[in-house]
Amino acid sequence: MHRQIPPATVQRLPIYLRCLNESGSETISSETLAELARVNSAKVRKDLSFLGSYGTRGVGYDVDHLVYQIGRELGLTKDWAVCIVGIGNLGRALAQYRGFGERGFAVLGLFDSDPAKIGKKVGGRTIEPLSRFKRAVKDRQLSIGVITTPAASAQEVADQMVAAGITSILNFAPTVLSKPDNVDVRRVDLSTELQICSFYLARSRGKQAS
Amino acid sequence: MHRQIPPATVQRLPIYLRCLNESGSETISSETLAELARVNSAKVRKDLSFLGSYGTRGVGYDVDHLVYQIGRELGLTKDWAVCIVGIGNLGRALAQYRGFGERGFAVLGLFDSDPAKIGKKVGGRTIEPLSRFKRAVKDRQLSIGVITTPAASAQEVADQMVAAGITSILNFAPTVLSKPDNVDVRRVDLSTELQICSFYLARSRGKQAS
Repeated sequence: MHRQIPPATVQRLPIYLRCLNESGSETISSETLAELARVNSAKVRKDLSFLGSYGTRGVGYDVDHLVYQIGRELGLTKDWAVCIVGIGNLGRALAQYRGFGERGFAVLGLFDSDPAKIGKKVGGRTIEPLSRFKRAVKDRQLSIGVITTPAASAQEVADQMVAAGITSILNFAPTVLSKPDNVDVRRVDLSTELQICSFYLARSRGKQAS
Repeated sequence: MHRQIPPATVQRLPIYLRCLNESGSETISSETLAELARVNSAKVRKDLSFLGSYGTRGVGYDVDHLVYQIGRELGLTKDWAVCIVGIGNLGRALAQYRGFGERGFAVLGLFDSDPAKIGKKVGGRTIEPLSRFKRAVKDRQLSIGVITTPAASAQEVADQMVAAGITSILNFAPTVLSKPDNVDVRRVDLSTELQICSFYLARSRGKQAS
């Protein structure tokens, strides 16, 4: 089961999954999926071949089956318990983000160090103090930690997550975190997509001007 | 100047840029950059060759020069004026996100349809009604529109953006938008990275179990 899937393919699987879920059709060609996902169709076929999916000539891929295969590959057939530390605007937005639940991510813990926030509810869940963090990770089997604190507190929070046994961290704070080798830290930079907008905008204006 | 850069390479350029900015060194090898950006080093060399950057054997790439080249390619040498429509938690978080300014994106307009929000300030800027949108786009030369409304309002907002002359839209609302061919709509799904966490977590647990 554990074929080697290149990281770049892993990055595209969630995009394919979203496009498939939104496609509304029973079958899809690699060309259509490529257009929706904004990659070339040879890459789509290559990526999906890692899942053992090859499609049918003239018909394409069965959407339901492909959704199942990608979901299985991404580990989405299991529900993951997620905690969010740092309940500012972004933490609040994520705590209420419906897309998480739909994908099998259950937000089962909200933590903050600000006494004024503790006890308040966001999305039906009460904000807890960090002193309860370690216990909560164990009791609720929290496996993914999301950091939405300011940059200055992110390392301390990451250290607490690691100490509590979390091995998968999603970091929205604009800073680099040091961590042990067995912990996977992914950084989300909200300006990445704006930079891609900028690329295409600069190109299209360049074309108009030339 | 307008070589064809594959979309997958464009997607990785902002990641390289962030890794380079954070590296703190004067030169960097393709192997180090690959490790930071989590792709393989052959891909890094291929991607950078599209920018005309080849590095020096045994030395690697000059970081400052590479930052300049990627920034130029992404159109970041020009400042872009950005507006955000939908000032809920996510809109607020983005309006105050420091990473935008650092990358040359100036948030010059915050809009909402809720009378209770209009006139309030976020990050030093006043929330305006949508009735002022078209005029603001023209006066402030707003070129990128960010949608952070609920899904149900997103299409209407996108239509208003298009009518006002915006050709680049970043959509955080969990819905597919229809748009004219000359408009670039990019969708941001905040659960994408969680799904990648899930992939690696499922793999590592699978390995422990086997």
